[in-house]
Amino acid sequence: MRATVIHGPHDVRIEEVPDPAIHKPTDAVVRVVSACICGSDLWAYRGVASRVAGQRIGHEFLGVVEETGGEVTGLVPGDFVVAPFVWSDGTCHFCREGLHTSCPEGGFWGEVGSDGGQGEAVRVPFADGTLVKLPGELAGEEKLLPSLLALSDVMSTGHHAAVAARVRPGATVAVVGDGAVGLCGVLAARRLGAGRIIALGRHEQRTAIAREFGATDVVAERGAAAVEAVRELTRGEGAHAVLEAVGTEESMRTAVSVTRDGGAVGYVGVPHGGSAGVDIAQMFARNIAVAGGVAPARAYIPQLLPDVLSGAIEPGLVFDRTVHLDDVPDGYRAMDDRTALKVRIAF
Amino acid sequence: MRATVIHGPHDVRIEEVPDPAIHKPTDAVVRVVSACICGSDLWAYRGVASRVAGQRIGHEFLGVVEETGGEVTGLVPGDFVVAPFVWSDGTCHFCREGLHTSCPEGGFWGEVGSDGGQGEAVRVPFADGTLVKLPGELAGEEKLLPSLLALSDVMSTGHHAAVAARVRPGATVAVVGDGAVGLCGVLAARRLGAGRIIALGRHEQRTAIAREFGATDVVAERGAAAVEAVRELTRGEGAHAVLEAVGTEESMRTAVSVTRDGGAVGYVGVPHGGSAGVDIAQMFARNIAVAGGVAPARAYIPQLLPDVLSGAIEPGLVFDRTVHLDDVPDGYRAMDDRTALKVRIAF
Repeated sequence: MRATVIHGPHDVRIEEVPDPAIHKPTDAVVRVVSACICGSDLWAYRGVASRVAGQRIGHEFLGVVEETGGEVTGLVPGDFVVAPFVWSDGTCHFCREGLHTSCPEGGFWGEVGSDGGQGEAVRVPFADGTLVKLPGELAGEEKLLPSLLALSDVMSTGHHAAVAARVRPGATVAVVGDGAVGLCGVLAARRLGAGRIIALGRHEQRTAIAREFGATDVVAERGAAAVEAVRELTRGEGAHAVLEAVGTEESMRTAVSVTRDGGAVGYVGVPHGGSAGVDIAQMFARNIAVAGGVAPARAYIPQLLPDVLSGAIEPGLVFDRTVHLDDVPDGYRAMDDRTALKVRIAF
Repeated sequence: MRATVIHGPHDVRIEEVPDPAIHKPTDAVVRVVSACICGSDLWAYRGVASRVAGQRIGHEFLGVVEETGGEVTGLVPGDFVVAPFVWSDGTCHFCREGLHTSCPEGGFWGEVGSDGGQGEAVRVPFADGTLVKLPGELAGEEKLLPSLLALSDVMSTGHHAAVAARVRPGATVAVVGDGAVGLCGVLAARRLGAGRIIALGRHEQRTAIAREFGATDVVAERGAAAVEAVRELTRGEGAHAVLEAVGTEESMRTAVSVTRDGGAVGYVGVPHGGSAGVDIAQMFARNIAVAGGVAPARAYIPQLLPDVLSGAIEPGLVFDRTVHLDDVPDGYRAMDDRTALKVRIAF
């Protein structure tokens, strides 16, 4: 089969790779129907996160179960499924508590020795614990696929930021980051009843989606000017809940600075800047909490799915380009130079 | 009157200062019955936190109202009161929400132009919003005074750490720091129903108090060895809730490292080490929250008072020495060289 392979910075290729097969009785093989490129894939693409030449890449996909191992009890060939961006055994303490990302048996698609999501098929470890079964009739509903695919990571991750930031009905929320996760954070905050949502971003196409997702205000400034702008919008106080969806030192510093005293930052941007932005002296004086991390999408997908099916939320609107598998390298380039927000892959 | 004045590192003196008087109609003057020296006073004493030569010092006291301004409605001369370690107007958004430490009109005893708590009397701004009235008959109960005085800061601060760390009934808790606040954190965790409390400390007198306050385990190691010891006690997982009561980079790093995935650090140690200990990469991967800050003692005192009065908690056991006002410099020396845990001042 063909899959996306990363060889080095700015060097992703579509290559012929061995067909996936059942290795363990808890495995399944899933034929991918739809996948996508994540903003966090760009850390590897840009060489900021190191990869072994030849590693697979991609961690968001949905598809149809093609084969199952002998111990898989909850899935059969033909089932339509969505995969969270990490796999997990579904049976450990952490999985049972809903923190599947801390499963000791868990792993990340594309890590050495595993398949990535940006390929024609994927061997899925711990299929029962990992995959979420979707109503089978949806497999053909092209219009719903983008939003179902968004559950794999960006919508679940935006939701995690909102939960960690303690978004409550009526709360004032600020969202730092206008990538797909930040936009899904806006949508998640609206879904949780936020009264006011301030999106920080300057890219007009993205802020337009932010408004469509529920942002009531957009702040185009950055750094100290952004902090001042958010304070002006909030009686000088800042936002009760701030979603950090970038991961740099600067974005975390902005997030802490625009948080109202006693409020919380929900951080989901993969940290790439050390801890200096987590300004503990400021946090201490103003009782600001920092919570979040890698989102347990496996726990959130079943919670968010009904609202996708009902149309109450449409996170798939973050996709603004679709490429065929052969053109995935173009998709990376487009996301890298910000001419595309989020690229979906068709098969 | 006489009060404690700080002139520079290791130079606190008892001096004759002007008697406090009502400056604003919301003021009261309180004659101090009991006060104490705080571990955080040592930051100033050691020259780590800068002070203007001649500043007052001390922020924990209880006493009797001597005089009130014309707009004070809730207190009359003769009332027995305890002061939280910051003053607050009691009427702003933040005070009404219980975050008195963020009151825009608030301030810290001993800041330039204000009285400190380690003196014979104190001018109290916003007396109605600041002071908590105690049952008058307690003024003579010498045995209760230490515990009532502990509400002023250390017990309220330990409680804040426990609340911020989300201590729940049955939870496994670790406490980093064996000073008075850390010990009160142990007591607060027990009060909130913790199932297991691991105190990190090596000073036998202090760990004995920790056990009396509810610690089930004591870890004498430090740094990486302490992390390993806590993990050994917790199936390799760490503690659900970790109370950080020191404020150095090393103590915060230890706190984050001994937290179970998905758990929280409640930090109340005044930060003196930058943010490097707030290891955001580790926090991200393991979904660890960091919450806390300066404790809104004014909100907590009324909540904790009934348990002090009933004897359910006796935080005053953290005091192991009493000095008269003239001997306060000796008290600082004793706390600085750790021959005293916490020094109370008699008048």
